[in-house]
Amino acid sequence: MKPTFLLIAVAALAGIVSVTVTASRAADGGNAPVFVTQIPDGYRDWRLISVAHEEGNLNSLAAVLGNDVAIKAYREGKVPFPDGTVIAALHYSHTASEENNKVFGRAQSFVPGNATNIQFMIKDSKKYSATGGWGFGHFKDGKPGDDALMRTCFPCHNQGKARDLVFTRFAP
Amino acid sequence: MKPTFLLIAVAALAGIVSVTVTASRAADGGNAPVFVTQIPDGYRDWRLISVAHEEGNLNSLAAVLGNDVAIKAYREGKVPFPDGTVIAALHYSHTASEENNKVFGRAQSFVPGNATNIQFMIKDSKKYSATGGWGFGHFKDGKPGDDALMRTCFPCHNQGKARDLVFTRFAP
Repeated sequence: MKPTFLLIAVAALAGIVSVTVTASRAADGGNAPVFVTQIPDGYRDWRLISVAHEEGNLNSLAAVLGNDVAIKAYREGKVPFPDGTVIAALHYSHTASEENNKVFGRAQSFVPGNATNIQFMIKDSKKYSATGGWGFGHFKDGKPGDDALMRTCFPCHNQGKARDLVFTRFAP
Repeated sequence: MKPTFLLIAVAALAGIVSVTVTASRAADGGNAPVFVTQIPDGYRDWRLISVAHEEGNLNSLAAVLGNDVAIKAYREGKVPFPDGTVIAALHYSHTASEENNKVFGRAQSFVPGNATNIQFMIKDSKKYSATGGWGFGHFKDGKPGDDALMRTCFPCHNQGKARDLVFTRFAP
């Protein structure tokens, strides 16, 4: 192959790649989802929103915590949540407590086992405009979930539009 | 009956009552248990120690929160807990969430239902010396538990001497 032909071939290939990227962006309306890739500082010291237990494949016990903006909005019943709201769901494996059961004298007690993942919802109506104003985050052993996993968050939460995509209610 | 005899009879009766009270005090070693009768201020804003699920008669989901002294002691692994430690267990009925199950497409989700009771452990080694340095409190609808119920706290918690009578471990 002569150098001239090689150059044209490379240029043509580059053109195809470029068209593909453009098409992909167009499919997202020029607005691809942005996910949370950093764990917010200090979340373990936030106040309690609620607790939860999921059976089935999840088999989890959770504590749901909120930063000050989140707690204030919950208490005021404010929907949509204001920018700056951060909600954290700390998931643990739902694990039988042998030491508690011994004290109770029967098998009835479940406590947090291993931390399975931590999930976040961060409200920033501009940055996360493609996903209802919420940035979704999922961290396992400190590492963010992959793109395929992260794309499942918004369609599911988007079923909860009446409460601004937030399922968890404030426990008394 | 003559007035004189009546007076003596009343005095004798008073004497019996007095002896009974004294005997009851002596059985406690002059140190009857003192319970927590006031709900500590601000407990709902305290930080998270852990969460728990009890099956059986309790059927509860719980959030266990601690004041600053408690959280610091837990993080430092300090046992016994210092005076000033307060631990709160917020118990809710373990209740199926129909709205969550609808989103999941299966019955798997449990959330806090009614608040069933709030329990406290307050460390004050002098005030609560009769019960391992811990004052125990139990409140249902804001009202403290009766004496019979309250007397069950210490004997059960006293099985956990290695961790200063505290069963709940700190969740990561």
